[in-house]
Amino acid sequence: MTVSEETMKRALQDYIDRFNRADAEGVAALYADDATVEDPVGSPVKRGKAEIAAFYKMAVATGARLTLAAPIRGSHGNAAAMAFDVRLNLPQGPSLIRVIDVMTFDDSGRFSSMRAYWGPSDVVAG
Amino acid sequence: MTVSEETMKRALQDYIDRFNRADAEGVAALYADDATVEDPVGSPVKRGKAEIAAFYKMAVATGARLTLAAPIRGSHGNAAAMAFDVRLNLPQGPSLIRVIDVMTFDDSGRFSSMRAYWGPSDVVAG
Repeated sequence: MTVSEETMKRALQDYIDRFNRADAEGVAALYADDATVEDPVGSPVKRGKAEIAAFYKMAVATGARLTLAAPIRGSHGNAAAMAFDVRLNLPQGPSLIRVIDVMTFDDSGRFSSMRAYWGPSDVVAG
Repeated sequence: MTVSEETMKRALQDYIDRFNRADAEGVAALYADDATVEDPVGSPVKRGKAEIAAFYKMAVATGARLTLAAPIRGSHGNAAAMAFDVRLNLPQGPSLIRVIDVMTFDDSGRFSSMRAYWGPSDVVAG
């Protein structure tokens, strides 16, 4: 492992904070150039900076706000994870999506992959 | 996807409940015969029922107790995840380990893999 837990946890907190400032470019900047995003797990994988930047531009435009549900977890390897809640307005009204994100890191401390665990049953009125 | 979110979430809850009853065999029975366990992520992978059963026999013998930190998450694929806290006595005293587990499933609804995200910084006095 070449990336410290402290670095990984700070990057996940930066992800939350930049997203909540609707800073899509800042979120995309946390990713390596050849990174992948699978959000939600089971959906088509986005590959590379252009697709990832477009994804976050769309995501922040929803007005979604993220709140950690528990402290960010590290690991003994090059990965970290966090449970959080997403609040946003959906066609059916104010909603809450319960998510766990897992990020892996390259040696420079950027995300090499992100996978978001949430399914239809994790979307509730909120 | 052939396994429902409901089935996956129930299996993760069973994992918590069986572990807290110190039912190591019951926990191991949630796994497919050729499953893998990486706990914590970054440590050597345990492969197959014998290694996994031995791991849980040791784990429950610590007297550890698991408490969900947030509701269990599903996905749009064959995976689910949960954030939880582990309370146990370590040489340094009563301790808390903050963990996120990610399980993938085979078509019969058993775990094909488990990865536990926690690192040195996730072990605190508690």
